[in-house]
Amino acid sequence: MPEPRYQLRPIGRIEISGDTACLRIDEPFRPALEGLAEFGHVVVLFWCHLTDTDELRGLLTCERPYTKGPESLGVFATRSPARPNPIGITPVPIMRLDMAEGAIEVPYIDAENGTPILDLKPYEPSLDRIRNIRTPSWRAHWPEWNEDSAMFDWSSEFNF
Amino acid sequence: MPEPRYQLRPIGRIEISGDTACLRIDEPFRPALEGLAEFGHVVVLFWCHLTDTDELRGLLTCERPYTKGPESLGVFATRSPARPNPIGITPVPIMRLDMAEGAIEVPYIDAENGTPILDLKPYEPSLDRIRNIRTPSWRAHWPEWNEDSAMFDWSSEFNF
Repeated sequence: MPEPRYQLRPIGRIEISGDTACLRIDEPFRPALEGLAEFGHVVVLFWCHLTDTDELRGLLTCERPYTKGPESLGVFATRSPARPNPIGITPVPIMRLDMAEGAIEVPYIDAENGTPILDLKPYEPSLDRIRNIRTPSWRAHWPEWNEDSAMFDWSSEFNF
Repeated sequence: MPEPRYQLRPIGRIEISGDTACLRIDEPFRPALEGLAEFGHVVVLFWCHLTDTDELRGLLTCERPYTKGPESLGVFATRSPARPNPIGITPVPIMRLDMAEGAIEVPYIDAENGTPILDLKPYEPSLDRIRNIRTPSWRAHWPEWNEDSAMFDWSSEFNF
């Protein structure tokens, strides 16, 4: 029995130049932005196009993906872009949204310039905001809030 | 120029029977679960297979998707499963993880039995947990935390 496959198409691209980042939504999809700007944050789903290779999509474990973490971790225990279905997810603050231009200005986004965008969702606290967290001891020194990440020195934390 | 397309394959299925819910991961992908159980919550990406039709993927706006919300909202301002790339995302608590069986028991999940799973990610507070939220006035009566959603009466909130 052939394995099912599902098809995705990009709805836009991430534009990064200098200190500015923009989610550029393709013209046909711009009506779908109506009402999004009332939310403070948008969850961006993007296609990790640089890791969309058979080899990287076949990786199931990572060797010490986090410098202070365990020797090996399954990819589903990481946020590595190399994974069977290379979809990245990150919530980002909405600074300005221009429906006519299909432009959402964001202060930053942890993705490469030109990355295809797959979907946008409002950051909905009743789903996405967890009060009581439990995390592994190896990442106990990391921030417990998105807002505190900007002040944290991430430079020596990742091996990917 | 042909539009790019990206291919996804399921890594498992959501199993719901009675009061129990399980994320069943296919055998080849089970090694990728190593280390995930140290996190309290897993972000589940799933394929909304019931809305994977040309018609529903072509919808850009919804008529009053939320009973107490505006008359019309763009799909990117909703969590509706009918969207151009019908990927659902929800974080759920990990109750028990059995790597050999590829089974993650969860207390609930807002998806249909048999829904294909695309990816699993650890709920990482430094990315996913936002302290200062801003949301539209029409959903101001909704909970501000995932944990409070279980006690909330959602029955008259949605039109989808």
